[in-house]
Amino acid sequence: MPEEGQMQREVLKVATTSRPVLVAGAIAGVIRSQGRVEVHAIGAGAVNQAIKAIAISRGYVVAAGLDLVCIPSFVDLSFDGQDRTGIRLLVEVR
Amino acid sequence: MPEEGQMQREVLKVATTSRPVLVAGAIAGVIRSQGRVEVHAIGAGAVNQAIKAIAISRGYVVAAGLDLVCIPSFVDLSFDGQDRTGIRLLVEVR
Repeated sequence: MPEEGQMQREVLKVATTSRPVLVAGAIAGVIRSQGRVEVHAIGAGAVNQAIKAIAISRGYVVAAGLDLVCIPSFVDLSFDGQDRTGIRLLVEVR
Repeated sequence: MPEEGQMQREVLKVATTSRPVLVAGAIAGVIRSQGRVEVHAIGAGAVNQAIKAIAISRGYVVAAGLDLVCIPSFVDLSFDGQDRTGIRLLVEVR
């Protein structure tokens, strides 16, 4: 059995054009089934949509007694064939 | 003595032009003295700088055994005399 750090994590990729309410629904769904989800975003527009989505998703799961927090870090991502530094937002239940 | 929810919270206002390493230092300073800090940002560029700052600040306080998380929400802010919806990032020690 793998250690927690090696377990497969669901990754949601968010773009500037992503709709925050839809991403929020996806976050809530993965949180309910797996307890955590990783959100990746490259660029200011995408990071902004991702943060809005996490703020909205908090409201989606609060009735189930789930209090979501996010942990931001930098991550090297491949985007359009180029290496870019993106933002990883690990969303977890507190 | 006021309840926790009524206590004065330090608020850091982040702009698109803010330098993430400087904001990160400010976040780390307030965390060390007060254990939590509120970061406000309006617009995608500012939110992006704020998230970068929080990611960097995690590294500044990890040696002290502090594991930072952030809790995003929407907040009504006054900006240049206009009411705008901004993002509030509550940064706390887990």
